[in-house]
Amino acid sequence: MAVERYDIVIVGAGPVGLLLSTCLARWGYKIKHIDMRPQPTVTGRADGIQPRSLDLLRNMGLKRAIMANEPAKVYEVAFWDPQESAKGIHRTGTWASCPKFIDARYPFTTLLHQGLIERVFIDDLLKNGVKLQRSWRITGFSTDGVDKQYPVEVNMAHVDGVEQETVRAKYLFSGEGARSFVREQLGVGITHKDPIAHVWGVMDGVVRTDFPDIKMKCTIHSDAGSIMVIPREANMVRLYIQIASSTDVDWNPRKSATTEEVQEAAKKIMQPYWIEWDRIEWFSVYPIGQGIADRYTLDERVFMGGDCCHTHSPKAGQGMNTAFLDAQNLAWKIHHVESGFADRSILKSYESERKLIAENLLNFDSQYAKLFSQRLQPSAGEVGGDSTTNNRDVEKAAKGEAVASENEFIKMFKASCEFTSGYGVAYNPNIFNWSPSHPAQSPLFLSSAQGTTTQRTGRIMSPATVTRVADANVVHLEQEIPLNGSYRIYLFAGLPALTATAVADFAAHVMKKNSFYSSYIRPDAHSVNYHERHNPDSHFFTFATVLNAPRPAIDTKAMLPEVLVRYFDHVYADDVWDQRVPDAKAAAHAKMGLSEERGGVVVVRPDGYVGCVVQLVEGSGTVDALNGYFDSFCQKKVGGEGRALL
Amino acid sequence: MAVERYDIVIVGAGPVGLLLSTCLARWGYKIKHIDMRPQPTVTGRADGIQPRSLDLLRNMGLKRAIMANEPAKVYEVAFWDPQESAKGIHRTGTWASCPKFIDARYPFTTLLHQGLIERVFIDDLLKNGVKLQRSWRITGFSTDGVDKQYPVEVNMAHVDGVEQETVRAKYLFSGEGARSFVREQLGVGITHKDPIAHVWGVMDGVVRTDFPDIKMKCTIHSDAGSIMVIPREANMVRLYIQIASSTDVDWNPRKSATTEEVQEAAKKIMQPYWIEWDRIEWFSVYPIGQGIADRYTLDERVFMGGDCCHTHSPKAGQGMNTAFLDAQNLAWKIHHVESGFADRSILKSYESERKLIAENLLNFDSQYAKLFSQRLQPSAGEVGGDSTTNNRDVEKAAKGEAVASENEFIKMFKASCEFTSGYGVAYNPNIFNWSPSHPAQSPLFLSSAQGTTTQRTGRIMSPATVTRVADANVVHLEQEIPLNGSYRIYLFAGLPALTATAVADFAAHVMKKNSFYSSYIRPDAHSVNYHERHNPDSHFFTFATVLNAPRPAIDTKAMLPEVLVRYFDHVYADDVWDQRVPDAKAAAHAKMGLSEERGGVVVVRPDGYVGCVVQLVEGSGTVDALNGYFDSFCQKKVGGEGRALL
Repeated sequence: MAVERYDIVIVGAGPVGLLLSTCLARWGYKIKHIDMRPQPTVTGRADGIQPRSLDLLRNMGLKRAIMANEPAKVYEVAFWDPQESAKGIHRTGTWASCPKFIDARYPFTTLLHQGLIERVFIDDLLKNGVKLQRSWRITGFSTDGVDKQYPVEVNMAHVDGVEQETVRAKYLFSGEGARSFVREQLGVGITHKDPIAHVWGVMDGVVRTDFPDIKMKCTIHSDAGSIMVIPREANMVRLYIQIASSTDVDWNPRKSATTEEVQEAAKKIMQPYWIEWDRIEWFSVYPIGQGIADRYTLDERVFMGGDCCHTHSPKAGQGMNTAFLDAQNLAWKIHHVESGFADRSILKSYESERKLIAENLLNFDSQYAKLFSQRLQPSAGEVGGDSTTNNRDVEKAAKGEAVASENEFIKMFKASCEFTSGYGVAYNPNIFNWSPSHPAQSPLFLSSAQGTTTQRTGRIMSPATVTRVADANVVHLEQEIPLNGSYRIYLFAGLPALTATAVADFAAHVMKKNSFYSSYIRPDAHSVNYHERHNPDSHFFTFATVLNAPRPAIDTKAMLPEVLVRYFDHVYADDVWDQRVPDAKAAAHAKMGLSEERGGVVVVRPDGYVGCVVQLVEGSGTVDALNGYFDSFCQKKVGGEGRALL
Repeated sequence: MAVERYDIVIVGAGPVGLLLSTCLARWGYKIKHIDMRPQPTVTGRADGIQPRSLDLLRNMGLKRAIMANEPAKVYEVAFWDPQESAKGIHRTGTWASCPKFIDARYPFTTLLHQGLIERVFIDDLLKNGVKLQRSWRITGFSTDGVDKQYPVEVNMAHVDGVEQETVRAKYLFSGEGARSFVREQLGVGITHKDPIAHVWGVMDGVVRTDFPDIKMKCTIHSDAGSIMVIPREANMVRLYIQIASSTDVDWNPRKSATTEEVQEAAKKIMQPYWIEWDRIEWFSVYPIGQGIADRYTLDERVFMGGDCCHTHSPKAGQGMNTAFLDAQNLAWKIHHVESGFADRSILKSYESERKLIAENLLNFDSQYAKLFSQRLQPSAGEVGGDSTTNNRDVEKAAKGEAVASENEFIKMFKASCEFTSGYGVAYNPNIFNWSPSHPAQSPLFLSSAQGTTTQRTGRIMSPATVTRVADANVVHLEQEIPLNGSYRIYLFAGLPALTATAVADFAAHVMKKNSFYSSYIRPDAHSVNYHERHNPDSHFFTFATVLNAPRPAIDTKAMLPEVLVRYFDHVYADDVWDQRVPDAKAAAHAKMGLSEERGGVVVVRPDGYVGCVVQLVEGSGTVDALNGYFDSFCQKKVGGEGRALL
C-alpha cells in the first residue's frame, strides 16, 4: 500500500500549530495535523492576546470570532505596594498597558481562555477541509530523503497504543510545547538564559472583593508576598502567585501548594481588602525555568516553534503571542518556497529571525520576573495616583527628554511597553529586510536611519486611515490586504498631477518582461474571477495605490495605468485627517515619512513587516530597485542585472 | 381543556415582529410568535440598516452577528446626470450618506439581505426559549374581556387549513406587512398622503461593468430613464427602476417588466458605460402607493406596526428601520405596564409617537421619490466632482450660513440626511418627553430651547466616549446600558470637589421612602448576583455616574455614595478628548451641554431617547424634579407632592 503523502505534518494543536495550519490550509496545502489531547484546552493556560496579535488575527479575519466571546480588555496596569505605615497595600500608580506613544489600533490586551481561542482556529480549519486528528502522538521521524519530494517520514500512533500510521511529508512541524518529542529526538539542547527557576501557582476563579482594581491587571507587592491579578472573561479573575524560587534557601522545584493555601496567601497579600471565592475554575502549580532551544531546525525540513523553542514566566503574557508570530513567519516562507516563488534558502531565516525575538523575550522576561518578585518601596510622591503624570513622563522618555525619577519597576515596565504590546518585534537586516548591506543596491532605497522614511525594515508598517475609492469606505490601510501569502506593494503616489509620469513609468516597468511582477503572473490571469480583489494577476503580489487627492477627484480608470486598475478595490484617497499628524494634508503619506507630493513605494512582507522603501521616480529606477530586492531571494532571475548571491 | 395563555401573540416574523419578540423574550414574557412563511426571507426585500438602527442593534448585542455577514457599507451617494453634450451620464456630485454634522458612531448605511438579518434575531429568540411557529396564520381575534387578565382571544390555523388553535393573550401584535388581516378586521383605514402610485422593478444580481461607482449608492438620471444603484453583500448590486407611475398617460398598476427588459433599460440608462449580469439573485416588480394606517391600535390591546401601518417607496431604505423603532417603542411600554411600573395609559403614546414619525417619513418619501423620477439638468459647475465643496456647503447650511445655489435634488437630499440616518426621529413633548407644559414643574429642568442643555427631549442622547473606572476600558457611554427595559439615569457629577454635597444629597433623596427609585426596589435586591451590572437594585432603573476627573483619581468606593457604588461598572471618568469639543476639559459633560464643574442629570428612556434633563443641586431639588417627572406616569404615587393627572 502506498504511503500517504502530505505537504506538512503538524504535531500539536496549541496556538503555534493552529495558526500555521490555518495559514497553510487557506493557501491550499495538504496537511496532517495531530494532537495528543482528545479535545481543545479545557481550562487554564495562556489567555493574553497582545495588541499586535489582535492586528494579526484581524488580518486573518478571525478577530470578530474571538471578540464574540466577550473577552476582558486590559487598558491599564495598576501597581500596588506596601504602605510605609504598614497597614497593607495601596496603589502607587497605574500605567497604560499600550501607551499613546505606540500607534496601535487596539491599545489593550485581550484576555480570553486559550481553549476559546483554539476553537476559532479549529472552526476555520474545518472550513478549509482540515480536521484535527486527536489523541494521536508522534512516535518517530526521519529526513531520510527516500522520496526527494517528500523527504520526511513520520510515524504516529494513537495514544492508546493500538493504531499506528506512517506518512511522508515535505515538512514536519513540532508545536508540541515545552516537552517536545521532536526536539528531544533531534538532540537540540535548551539554553537557560537565567539560571533561576520558579514555582508558580495560577488560579482562575470568580471572586467577591472590595479590592477596587479587581478588573484591572495589577502587580501587588506586600510584606506577605507578591501576586499578579489579571481579569478574564465571564467575571473571572486570574491570580499568579510565586510559590518558590531557586534562590530560596530551601528550594525545591517540586514544592506545591493547595488551593486553600494560595487563597490564604492572596487574602494576606491583599489586606486591608477582603477577597472571597465563589468558584474556582482552574488551579495549577508548576515549576518553570527560562529556556531557549539552541536550534529551531537542523535541515529546514523539520521545524519547531512556540513553547517547544522558548519557555519563560507566564507573567508578561507573551507565550501565545510569540507562538503566533513564530507560526506566521514560517507559514509564508514555506509557501513561497513550495509555490515556486522564493529560493529554498530563505527557510534559514525562520530560525535567525524568530530566535532573536525569543532571546529578546527571555532577556525581558528575566528582568521583569525578577522585579516582580521584589518588594518595592515606592518613594513618596514619585508616581502618585495620577497616570497622566506617568503618561507625560513616558512620552517624554519616548522622545528622549528627561523625566522625573521613578522606581525601577515602573521604569522597566514603561520601557517594556513596546515589547509587551508586540510592536517591539524588530527583525535584523537580512535578505528580506533591506539595509545598506543588502545585495540590492540603488540610491533610491529610503531608510529610517537616514530619515528619508519613518518605516523601518523588519518592523510592521505604520497604521493609516484612508478612503477606499471604489466604495468610499473609510478603512484601515494596513488591514486592507489580508494575510494571503502575498507581498504587499503600497504605491504612495503623491499628488496625481506631479506623479503621473512616474506612476506610468512604474507600471510600464512592472509589466516589462523579467520584472519581479511579470515573472510571476498567474497562468490563469486571463480567466481570474472578475471580483478577485487581492490576486488578480499574481499569487505573490497584491498592489495598493494611495493618492494624495480627495476621493471624488479620483477617477481610477482615467488616472491609473491598467496594472493598478486591476486592483480596483485597492485604490485609496489619502484624505482622512489623523490626530498623530494633524498638520499633514495627506496623513498616510506623512505617517510613512514620504513626500506628500512625490510619494514612494513601501514593500511589505506577507506578514506585515516592512521589506524596503523606495523612492518613486520617473524612468526605470524605482522598478529596478524592486527587481534587485526581489532578485535576491526569488527562484527566477528577476530584472536585468546579475543574480545576487544569498 | 384549558386554553393556553400568553403575554402576547405576535403575528409576522419580519423585522418589526422579530425585534418586538426579541425584547419581550429577554424580559421574561411568554410569547406565541407565528408566521405564514415556512422559512425566513430567502431573497430580496429590505436590506438597508441606517446608522441609528446599527446603534440600536449594538445596544441589543446583535451588531456583531449582523456584521459577521460582511455587509456592504454605503458612506457616500453619487449623483449621475445626463451631460449637456448628450453623450450619456456623468457624475455631477457625491455626498456623504451620513455627513459629519451628524454625530454618528457608524456614519454609513449597512446593506444586507433581510433574511440574514432575520436569522440574527431568530437565533437570539431561540436562546431565550422562543421558537417561531411557522406556516401558521391568524384567522380571527377579539378583545372579548372574558378573561380580564388575558382579554384577547386569538384564533390561528396552519396554512394548509387542517390544524387550528385558539389561545388567550394580554396583547396581540400584527407585524403582518402591508396586507394585514388584523388591520382589515379592525376596519382601520389607510390614508394615502400622496395619491401618486408607482410600479417598481427591483433586481439583485452580480454584475460586471466599467461604471466606476458600482460599489456606491447612486441615483442615475438619463434621457432613457432613471435608476438607483445600491451595493450589497457578496459582490451583489441592487437596481431599482421605476416602471410606471400613476401620472403616466397609460398608467396601469399591473404593468410589469421582464428581467431582460429591466436589464436592457439599465444598459441604456448607464451609457456610455457597459454592464453585464453574471447572475440574477432576485427580481421583482411591484406596485406601491404611499399609505399610512389611521390608527395603530383601537384598544391598546391589539397593536400594529411596521409595513402594516405605513407603506412608501423603497428608495430611501426606511422601511425596516422604521419598523425596528416601532417595535422598540412598543416593547418597553408594554413591559413597563405589565411589570407594574407605569400606568396603562402610557400605551396610548405608542400610536401618538410612532404615527408622527411615519407621517414625517411619508412626507419625506413623496418629495424624495418625486425628485428621484425627475430628470435633472445640473447647472454647470454647481456641484462638480468635489464632495468637499458639498461638505462645506452643508456644514454651513447646518449652521444656518448661506451656501451657493444647488439643484433641487441635492438640496433635498442634504436636508434629508438627518432623517435618513435615523437621527432625525424626534418625538413631540408628552408625558415622557419633558417640556414646559409637562405636569412636572421645577425650575431645575433644563431645556435645549433655553440653551441650558444640548440634549433635546424626544431625541436620542448624544454619543460620548469616556473611561470606565472599574477596568479603565475606553467605552461609548451611550452603549454602556443595554436595551434592558430600564430607564437610564446619567448623573454627570462635574468636579468631585465641587459636587460632593450635591451628589450625597442626590443619593440620600433617591433612597428616601416614596422616591421614584426606592418605590421600585426589587424585592430580591439583597440577594442579587454580586456581578449584576445593570439592575442590582431595580428592574426599572440603571444608574451611571460620570465624573470630571482623570480615571486614576477616582476612588469609587471612597468618593461616591452607596447607591451609586452599587453600579460599580457604571462609573466613568470624563477624561477622553473629543474632536467635536476640542477645547473641553470634560468632553462628555460638554457634549451634553452641561456645566463641566457642576454637572447635571440626564434621564434617558429605555429606548435611548432623552426624557428630561435636570440641574444637579444641593438639597432635595434634583430628586424632587425627577419624582415629579416619574410620578406623571408611574403606577405608584412617587415623591411628596400630589399625583399629576395624565
